[in-house]
Amino acid sequence: MTAEPRLPDGASALVLTASDRSAAGERADTSGASIAQRLAAVGFAVERAVVPDDRQAIAEALQAGAARHRLVITTGGTGLTPRDVTPQATASVVDYEVPGIAEAMRAEGLRFTPFAALSRGIVGVRGGSLIVNLPGSPKGALESLEVVIPLLAHALETLAGPFDHAAARARGRSDLPEGTP
Amino acid sequence: MTAEPRLPDGASALVLTASDRSAAGERADTSGASIAQRLAAVGFAVERAVVPDDRQAIAEALQAGAARHRLVITTGGTGLTPRDVTPQATASVVDYEVPGIAEAMRAEGLRFTPFAALSRGIVGVRGGSLIVNLPGSPKGALESLEVVIPLLAHALETLAGPFDHAAARARGRSDLPEGTP
Amino acid sequence: MTAEPRLPDGASALVLTASDRSAAGERADTSGASIAQRLAAVGFAVERAVVPDDRQAIAEALQAGAARHRLVITTGGTGLTPRDVTPQATASVVDYEVPGIAEAMRAEGLRFTPFAALSRGIVGVRGGSLIVNLPGSPKGALESLEVVIPLLAHALETLAGPFDHAAARARGRSDLPEGTP
Repeated sequence: MTAEPRLPDGASALVLTASDRSAAGERADTSGASIAQRLAAVGFAVERAVVPDDRQAIAEALQAGAARHRLVITTGGTGLTPRDVTPQATASVVDYEVPGIAEAMRAEGLRFTPFAALSRGIVGVRGGSLIVNLPGSPKGALESLEVVIPLLAHALETLAGPFDHAAARARGRSDLPEGTP
Repeated sequence: MTAEPRLPDGASALVLTASDRSAAGERADTSGASIAQRLAAVGFAVERAVVPDDRQAIAEALQAGAARHRLVITTGGTGLTPRDVTPQATASVVDYEVPGIAEAMRAEGLRFTPFAALSRGIVGVRGGSLIVNLPGSPKGALESLEVVIPLLAHALETLAGPFDHAAARARGRSDLPEGTP
Repeated sequence: MTAEPRLPDGASALVLTASDRSAAGERADTSGASIAQRLAAVGFAVERAVVPDDRQAIAEALQAGAARHRLVITTGGTGLTPRDVTPQATASVVDYEVPGIAEAMRAEGLRFTPFAALSRGIVGVRGGSLIVNLPGSPKGALESLEVVIPLLAHALETLAGPFDHAAARARGRSDLPEGTP
């Protein structure tokens, strides 16, 4: 029903990895690479960046990324260690949150591990761009990303401007069920 | 177990539709009418109002509604289009949120469509009144409303003043299970 | 897979009951006693305190408790009566919230009663200490506590300082699945 999204032409995304070790070149950015590969497979032109687990550095990268891309996906820094500050940095730059996406990612994660409850990732909107915090582990990041993928095309088309759900359904958009918000 | 609620006598509600088109008379307020009908069926005296998707207009209607009714239900404006501002307006007038009701509505919605995760509706309390944001589509609004209906009588009786759960259970209130908060 | 947690040596917790009646000596603090017993069984040295449903009193007890214990568990004051202020008091003293734990507690509670959606309990971090709001009823408090117990050892070890999940898994920590945030 919600297979691969029909993205707008030229859709692009930033994959932003928050990791002290990857930023220092001490660890390969496996999660960022996996996320980028998956987004490219569904049609995004993907840019990547790596920053240390520093609130100001993350916030600035998010601001710059949201100015150039309709989608910014982060990985890393969502847990409880003292260096985990990605949700705080994200909260400081979004206009508003979309809590249901974060809830759905955690609910899916709980099917695999109770520790999914510890992920503090948030999802929010800055300007017309969607920012999504994924966990740092490659497996956790990809599991959460699969929850987001089916939502992206519709999220981006609504963010882009006036969107009349009833009219779109009347035009035959069967991917938009009647309960669509 | 939780059939129709036993509402206080004279319980009343405002159904507030946020919709540019309905406010301009360009579209029938089907969602508002359906919500009002369902609330009347469970015993509420229902007032209705329609405002455009304007943050200030919604906030003022919520304030006026909460001053006259113990329950205010909104429909519309919970999505991601630039005109969707109902959650922001609601957040600006509530004393505190009741996040579990919004979570439960979205979890129920996810059974029907993954797009339920995009609904940003919040639930909160202003004074002794409960404010609930439902989605704008008639189907989505009614599905979410069914999650709220079984909670209303108990929510309103606790909001109304001191309420001793243990004493109520001892008096035979079998609708209040022992795990009731 | 996640049986009893392996807590750090000397782990201690404060169980804080918010209840006007218990503070006045009019009602036994059954919930606090049950929570303390369960935490002791998994290895915590437990201190207990009772305060009235007063925002300032709760906030001060939380601050003092988090200064001495890595874990502070509250019970009571999470509902909708005018005296329920525990979540507000908690929000005022935490550095950040861990929303997934509160979501998971409510999702578990919904298996037993729809009224679990009315519990406004939050979970957050102050300094390196985890603060968890449980409902006030003994049954609801213990049901929610069982959701938290499997998370505690890992939450406390990550809060305590740098923690490298990949390295820990490489050392054989099979309790940390690959999707761990």
